[in-house]
Amino acid sequence: MSVRELLRVHGQPKREVYFDIENSGFVPDEVVEAMLPYFNRRGYGNPAITHKPGWEAYEVFYETKELVAKTINAGPEEIVFTHSGTEANNLALMGFVLASKKKGKIVSSIIEHGSVLFVLEEISKRYGWKYQLVPVDEEGLVDPSIFATFIDRDTLLISIQLVNHEIGTIQDIKALVDVARDRNPDVVFHTDAVDAYGRMEIDVERLGVDMLTISSHKILGPKGVGVLYIKEGVKLEPIMRGQLSAEKLWPGVENIPIIAGFKRAVELAFDDLGSNIEHMRDLRDRLMKGIIDSVPDVIINGPVGDRRVCDNVNVSFLYVEGEAITIELSMRGIYVSSGSACTSRYLEPSHVLLAIGRRHEEAHGSILFKVTRYHTVGDIEYTLEQIPDAIDRLRKISSWKPSR
Amino acid sequence: MSVRELLRVHGQPKREVYFDIENSGFVPDEVVEAMLPYFNRRGYGNPAITHKPGWEAYEVFYETKELVAKTINAGPEEIVFTHSGTEANNLALMGFVLASKKKGKIVSSIIEHGSVLFVLEEISKRYGWKYQLVPVDEEGLVDPSIFATFIDRDTLLISIQLVNHEIGTIQDIKALVDVARDRNPDVVFHTDAVDAYGRMEIDVERLGVDMLTISSHKILGPKGVGVLYIKEGVKLEPIMRGQLSAEKLWPGVENIPIIAGFKRAVELAFDDLGSNIEHMRDLRDRLMKGIIDSVPDVIINGPVGDRRVCDNVNVSFLYVEGEAITIELSMRGIYVSSGSACTSRYLEPSHVLLAIGRRHEEAHGSILFKVTRYHTVGDIEYTLEQIPDAIDRLRKISSWKPSR
Repeated sequence: MSVRELLRVHGQPKREVYFDIENSGFVPDEVVEAMLPYFNRRGYGNPAITHKPGWEAYEVFYETKELVAKTINAGPEEIVFTHSGTEANNLALMGFVLASKKKGKIVSSIIEHGSVLFVLEEISKRYGWKYQLVPVDEEGLVDPSIFATFIDRDTLLISIQLVNHEIGTIQDIKALVDVARDRNPDVVFHTDAVDAYGRMEIDVERLGVDMLTISSHKILGPKGVGVLYIKEGVKLEPIMRGQLSAEKLWPGVENIPIIAGFKRAVELAFDDLGSNIEHMRDLRDRLMKGIIDSVPDVIINGPVGDRRVCDNVNVSFLYVEGEAITIELSMRGIYVSSGSACTSRYLEPSHVLLAIGRRHEEAHGSILFKVTRYHTVGDIEYTLEQIPDAIDRLRKISSWKPSR
Repeated sequence: MSVRELLRVHGQPKREVYFDIENSGFVPDEVVEAMLPYFNRRGYGNPAITHKPGWEAYEVFYETKELVAKTINAGPEEIVFTHSGTEANNLALMGFVLASKKKGKIVSSIIEHGSVLFVLEEISKRYGWKYQLVPVDEEGLVDPSIFATFIDRDTLLISIQLVNHEIGTIQDIKALVDVARDRNPDVVFHTDAVDAYGRMEIDVERLGVDMLTISSHKILGPKGVGVLYIKEGVKLEPIMRGQLSAEKLWPGVENIPIIAGFKRAVELAFDDLGSNIEHMRDLRDRLMKGIIDSVPDVIINGPVGDRRVCDNVNVSFLYVEGEAITIELSMRGIYVSSGSACTSRYLEPSHVLLAIGRRHEEAHGSILFKVTRYHTVGDIEYTLEQIPDAIDRLRKISSWKPSR
């Protein structure tokens, strides 16, 4: 069936609740409005050029750096824009390797995002660096004492997520940084904070990290800009080349409308971060509890309580395939994704769920929800009305045999 | 002086005419409007995910590929999206080298864009490939018989611009492809068509090229998407890595609102390409003739007539510094850029102007204008009213001594 036919059959649901922030954030109207002037009324020039639209562009460019820097307790000169969080992770790892005078080892974890894991593979293939992946426990936590055994004098770079993108585990990065520096004071520590930014307080000084990745679309800013925090003194080479621009590690013209939208998204996320977190945590807990109370044979993936980030709900519905759930829920206007191989175009089910000990069939039935400050209690109630019926219906037609 | 103070001193000109399409295109309202639904009303999902907003996203993604393919006589499966024209050039060259089983030589020209020239340098440094740059004549043309002497059995890749970004020279790519295949039938031919697309007919079959680069912002689409045409059978490796996505050579989530805007920009450029070209050519000639007629001591850079692309005017104003001109014209609401070192944040004046035989002081006073289908005869008249006075004023206060 073609996508056009699928859409025709699908029709327009009476209510829509979008939870698939993991794979693509929606951009709220108030963020879109902040972008509009910069397409053709002001700041539409290149920030490296000396004329009015160029200076206006530079102003937005620099003010956004200042704002982002403030939210993580860094300096504006330590903020570099990229096209995406993926590019920022590529730049952090590949850029470090390209700038390094000697070959060494990289330590990371087994549950990192693909934009770290696949880059490590590539670095190993292209440049002959070694890398090792630290295991995690059943909640996705890296044990500092196990981690310590991976660090030695050859370990030049470490990359560990602050928050896991699938199961929401908040890693104790400060403890890992301390352990790492204890074993090798010169090691450079990168953290992918894409799923932490706007969902918890982040202070690069307190964490002790040297590099940190942020993505606009994960905080409901427009796609097209990521950020890499690079502590003063850390040396990277650009991974792409091109005309010189205002951003030395990012060739090509800066995307000022997108940066202006990102700036607005940062303001909205941080103007009252505490209340935003409180709101998301409330919705997360209502959704998680509601599912457990109304659907038999479910497993919560990842930690519960304070070690779980405020926006993440990840549930395995046993005896049913994730792709079937995403489609069934889509018909009801509820948009989610799955760690199943089928929905994500991966050949394998989620490596994160397998790493925390889920069996293949448990990973296949996993569904990921992320709540935002725009979701309401009504959205959660509607979702909880639909889920038991949807799962029940799918289980009745499923060929999987429950073992009970 | 800070940018904020500069902008305060500058004030708001009574009329504004923006010609600096080379460094950043403005995005017309009709293109912005085409993007708006995709931020949060439809297609805001990830095109790789199986739910309604994902399918809607995939529909835009694929329809845009079909449309772009049609404009260059290619197939939709031969179209790959990147974040920018710069990234597409990086992917074409670096991706080819990474996929190649043997080391070889790359041939390019001395007047290519930085996103080709600096990538070649990088490839040489990282992977030990050789590259050679073919010279050009005083109009920026590559002589096929000289070009032929650069091609041998070791030449695996060639990259020559279809239209030069600074002086508007239309290269006879078909002749160069024929010469190249005659010397080495297996050579892969890439052309950077960023400054040709939407300004002339392009047919990849007729040109005989294997790869071709397009950039959205150069046709007044939004920044954030470029295109690489890759002829079926040509093998590239991705230059960045990440989660699998709908675009195999571009990791990360596709930017659907930006792609929807690009789609609209393509429609607007190609719905009546002939009239658009006619209009731009008329404005180009009025501007060029008007400057020659009203300002003494000017040099036109690049060819005149049919070998010059329809939108490009490049003039050296002798005895005056380009940066001073861009600022003086900016005060009058006319926005241009210069091949001078100062305005472009390069250490050297334009390598293109030096390559066609301009002296340093001639390159320093060069100004680049690009007209679009949105410019009017009134815009050109206003510009021609301002330029003689602006140049005269600057020459009076300049320390440069005319030799006459």
